[in-house]
Amino acid sequence: MDEVKYVSGETRIFAIVGHPIEQVRSPEMITAELVRRGHNAILVPTDVLPEDFERTVAGLMRVQNLDGLIFTIPFKQAACALAGILGDQALKVGAVNAMARNRDGDWVGDIFDGIGCVEAFRNRSLTFEDRRVMLIGAGGAGRAIAVAVAQQRPRAIKIFDIDAKRATDLVEKIADIDPRIDASFGKPILENVDILLNASPVGMLSDPRAPIEAQQIPSDVVVFDAIVKPELTTLLTIAQQSGCRTIFGREMMRGQIKKIVDFFESRGGKADLA
Amino acid sequence: MDEVKYVSGETRIFAIVGHPIEQVRSPEMITAELVRRGHNAILVPTDVLPEDFERTVAGLMRVQNLDGLIFTIPFKQAACALAGILGDQALKVGAVNAMARNRDGDWVGDIFDGIGCVEAFRNRSLTFEDRRVMLIGAGGAGRAIAVAVAQQRPRAIKIFDIDAKRATDLVEKIADIDPRIDASFGKPILENVDILLNASPVGMLSDPRAPIEAQQIPSDVVVFDAIVKPELTTLLTIAQQSGCRTIFGREMMRGQIKKIVDFFESRGGKADLA
Repeated sequence: MDEVKYVSGETRIFAIVGHPIEQVRSPEMITAELVRRGHNAILVPTDVLPEDFERTVAGLMRVQNLDGLIFTIPFKQAACALAGILGDQALKVGAVNAMARNRDGDWVGDIFDGIGCVEAFRNRSLTFEDRRVMLIGAGGAGRAIAVAVAQQRPRAIKIFDIDAKRATDLVEKIADIDPRIDASFGKPILENVDILLNASPVGMLSDPRAPIEAQQIPSDVVVFDAIVKPELTTLLTIAQQSGCRTIFGREMMRGQIKKIVDFFESRGGKADLA
Repeated sequence: MDEVKYVSGETRIFAIVGHPIEQVRSPEMITAELVRRGHNAILVPTDVLPEDFERTVAGLMRVQNLDGLIFTIPFKQAACALAGILGDQALKVGAVNAMARNRDGDWVGDIFDGIGCVEAFRNRSLTFEDRRVMLIGAGGAGRAIAVAVAQQRPRAIKIFDIDAKRATDLVEKIADIDPRIDASFGKPILENVDILLNASPVGMLSDPRAPIEAQQIPSDVVVFDAIVKPELTTLLTIAQQSGCRTIFGREMMRGQIKKIVDFFESRGGKADLA
């Protein structure tokens, strides 16, 4: 083989910036979506040490054929400072996971973690409207999910986090977004709940725990877990055994990827949530 | 298609830095060579404006999963200043077209343009030893070719460039490398010449000219043209019609690519010229 077909001098570059970087799935998944839409483009992993973040990303932002950046752990909050313009979700969440250079040469940042979750539900023809939501975890992913769900007119959002302060902060943020929502802090409950969302790391990788104590979930509760590894967490196993509908972290990722590529294609234009 | 197979979080990154960048062939060719040798690696094009060169490349050099850089027009000389360690060819030529991070974390720079030419001849079982060489063009590529050829114990090297100063400078450099070589400056001749090398841009792209005035070349002269577009230049056409052996720019590129990937694999270790 003298030449590969998937990269050339005309290829447009996108990069995911994180540390570590080996575990990310955006390179193969976002590249596939870009190629599927007919672009000569590739998303490459870039492993940047926290002490190099500002300098290296400033350099990447000057590369003329680099059209977009994705940020992952631990840079989503730091990336906020690099964007010249912040989208609606980024402003509300205070973090950025995607940046695109717009036609004026400015960098627009926004966050799609929560939108991906809403999109995963929509793809299953499920809505948050008028639903009672229990959210476990108020870290980066939890914040983004809470903000995106709050924009979907749910009836109630109850939030639990082992760090009570960040859970109550998030409750306040939801009240700001839509005061009609019954937002509260409290332990994970399964009564009077229509949708159970896990955005905590409990159950990730080799952690066998579920983020709830119950061994049984009412069968009309829809259960979502943001964790992507393993795909079938202990929480989702309990949910399936209880006869609940389950939505996987991978579905959130897929929903987010389409939205991020929309964002890249529109050069930082608003992601369509409608 | 949900995922592409050629890039993942574990992919090692290489980049070619130039301006403009669309015309480069290293991404498809060097990536192919890396993949052929079993590496999960990709070489991506990066278009960097001259005013951003220092800052952006300094940032790229800090990316932890980026193992090597290629430099093309107009950065080969500027790149010299960025390498912590210069290889033999780079020291002699005063330019760098490849850099690799060695095991100590230092960046080693070297230039392979001339080595690629020598390698192209070797792949055709042709040697420069004891041969009389006529070189047209003493710019970047010409300098690198002259230096590499001078290390192959030719009997004579005559150099022509429309800029007489840079041709005579290069003649002096050759005398430094090996005083036994009969090095001189002068108009392109076809008598008492065994090998004719064109490293000038005359004949490139839509330029229909040949860098020599003659319409006929003695059939025992080997004729090489460093130009890659078009593949068959006017010079090579004349050579073929004269019954000469011809060596194409693409062969130089192929020879160079293997050497550059050797250099990347050895993390900046010496390229094997023996």
